[in-house]
Amino acid sequence: MSPFRVYILGCGSALPTDKHNPSAQAVEVRERMFLVDCGEGTQLSLRRMHVNFNRIQGIFISHLHGDHCLGLIGLISTMNLADRTAPFQVYAPAEYRSLFTAEMDFFCHDLSYEVTFHPVDTTVCQTVYEDSSITVVSLPLDHRVPCCGYLFRERQGRPHLRRDMMDQYGIPYSQADRIKAGDDYVTADGTTLPNAMLVTPADRPRAYAYCSDTRYMPGLHRLIAGVNVLYHESTYAQDRADRAGKYFHSTARDAATVAREAGVGQLYIGHYSARYDDEQVLLDEAREVFPETFLTREGMVIDVE
Amino acid sequence: MSPFRVYILGCGSALPTDKHNPSAQAVEVRERMFLVDCGEGTQLSLRRMHVNFNRIQGIFISHLHGDHCLGLIGLISTMNLADRTAPFQVYAPAEYRSLFTAEMDFFCHDLSYEVTFHPVDTTVCQTVYEDSSITVVSLPLDHRVPCCGYLFRERQGRPHLRRDMMDQYGIPYSQADRIKAGDDYVTADGTTLPNAMLVTPADRPRAYAYCSDTRYMPGLHRLIAGVNVLYHESTYAQDRADRAGKYFHSTARDAATVAREAGVGQLYIGHYSARYDDEQVLLDEAREVFPETFLTREGMVIDVE
Repeated sequence: MSPFRVYILGCGSALPTDKHNPSAQAVEVRERMFLVDCGEGTQLSLRRMHVNFNRIQGIFISHLHGDHCLGLIGLISTMNLADRTAPFQVYAPAEYRSLFTAEMDFFCHDLSYEVTFHPVDTTVCQTVYEDSSITVVSLPLDHRVPCCGYLFRERQGRPHLRRDMMDQYGIPYSQADRIKAGDDYVTADGTTLPNAMLVTPADRPRAYAYCSDTRYMPGLHRLIAGVNVLYHESTYAQDRADRAGKYFHSTARDAATVAREAGVGQLYIGHYSARYDDEQVLLDEAREVFPETFLTREGMVIDVE
Repeated sequence: MSPFRVYILGCGSALPTDKHNPSAQAVEVRERMFLVDCGEGTQLSLRRMHVNFNRIQGIFISHLHGDHCLGLIGLISTMNLADRTAPFQVYAPAEYRSLFTAEMDFFCHDLSYEVTFHPVDTTVCQTVYEDSSITVVSLPLDHRVPCCGYLFRERQGRPHLRRDMMDQYGIPYSQADRIKAGDDYVTADGTTLPNAMLVTPADRPRAYAYCSDTRYMPGLHRLIAGVNVLYHESTYAQDRADRAGKYFHSTARDAATVAREAGVGQLYIGHYSARYDDEQVLLDEAREVFPETFLTREGMVIDVE
């Protein structure tokens, strides 16, 4: 299976510290590489994690708080200095278009490559990107400003040919496409080999959901049911549930509740408030509700499986 | 003497690397603290150097290339999260006003403190800031976009009272101001004590000049003659003089030539191109022209004396 990985570039919240960078991730799926959010310093984190800038084909911005997007103009600028030629796609809340355009005119004119802004309606769950292998869907979230998460999902692939059967019956490779599409095969002597004998089932499509920033959303689990990996913000523990409510953030228990309701494979939490010296308290709280919870940290690579 | 110090927060050029941050310095003079330029990541560098954000009363921006200003909005945002109340002054090329205003409206509305934009005309040498203790003067530079350096200079202070003479002649402290202002003192028995007997000379005002980015400017030395410390960009060595010319940058020899012409105390160079693994070549080249040259590096504190 081709790698489906999430690179944690930053998992702190608004206050940058020596310990955590503001929000940013790289998502590698089916030979594609995307960014999700881009706080200040993301380009350095990419360098440290040896992610090749030229492989990144675009970015999905969740919302327009500085800790989720202030690194974008610098990154676009740096890719220009590195003589990038491949186009770059920016998917962001529609409200950002005019300021983004002004910033680009000011700091990034005469680029060596094309940058296209794709406005995202954060209030609906809809496909914002698709190609032959994956889809990316917006997930409306409940934050102080327009905000959405993103769901990366592989498309259903085709069954795998059983090479042993192909060889045993001398089936020419020219028939592979038809067999993968579901056809039986009739041998020269008229014997019908049923399709099920010739293939093993397709890989189950993998999915990754990024949900930050948001307060607990009772309906969110329906949009991300069964994903392999969920990243859900967990700014606070329950001791600061009042702050979570006030600032439209989640507690670790909130995040774990969504994970349990959605029946995900694994939950990764982040967007830690700088108030927590040790995030173990967040992990412990989440695991009481959803045992398969893990803390993110900068430099971590998550396999979505 | 009260400290006059320059904190090197970033001394790389446009490409951020693991070794260098983009341009930023903090200048501490007469109990005041200012920033000069603010590349991406400056707020983290400030934290690492234990500079108290609340002490910073304003920033001087040299020009509007991203590596000199993309950290500003994030810093203003972070100071708000830290409940700053003191006003903050932004001195920047006039061209930035409209974009800065748009960025502030977007990312920094409802601040807990006031931010005021002061447009700087980069084409003239004029006082952009003054108070009872210091002046800051713009230094027109020769770069691809409007750009100026900044000259921080202490005002001429007053002579120091000779406490030994004050005691010996029983001069009341109420006379101190008049004596510092130049008056003689007449004792009870009618003896005139000449002012020169009662004071030692005032400290020589110290000065620091920041000159980045620019190509070699033949007239620059006249504006910064005799400053104690000069920071002058030195993006390249002479082997890349053609690039320096093309991109309006200086070589190490250029920087040292300005320092020699201006008769400064010490020259610090920086804004190193990422092409140089070892900046020793830049230092060697500069020292051939001006021996009192030093390399800047992140974390360094320069005493201006």
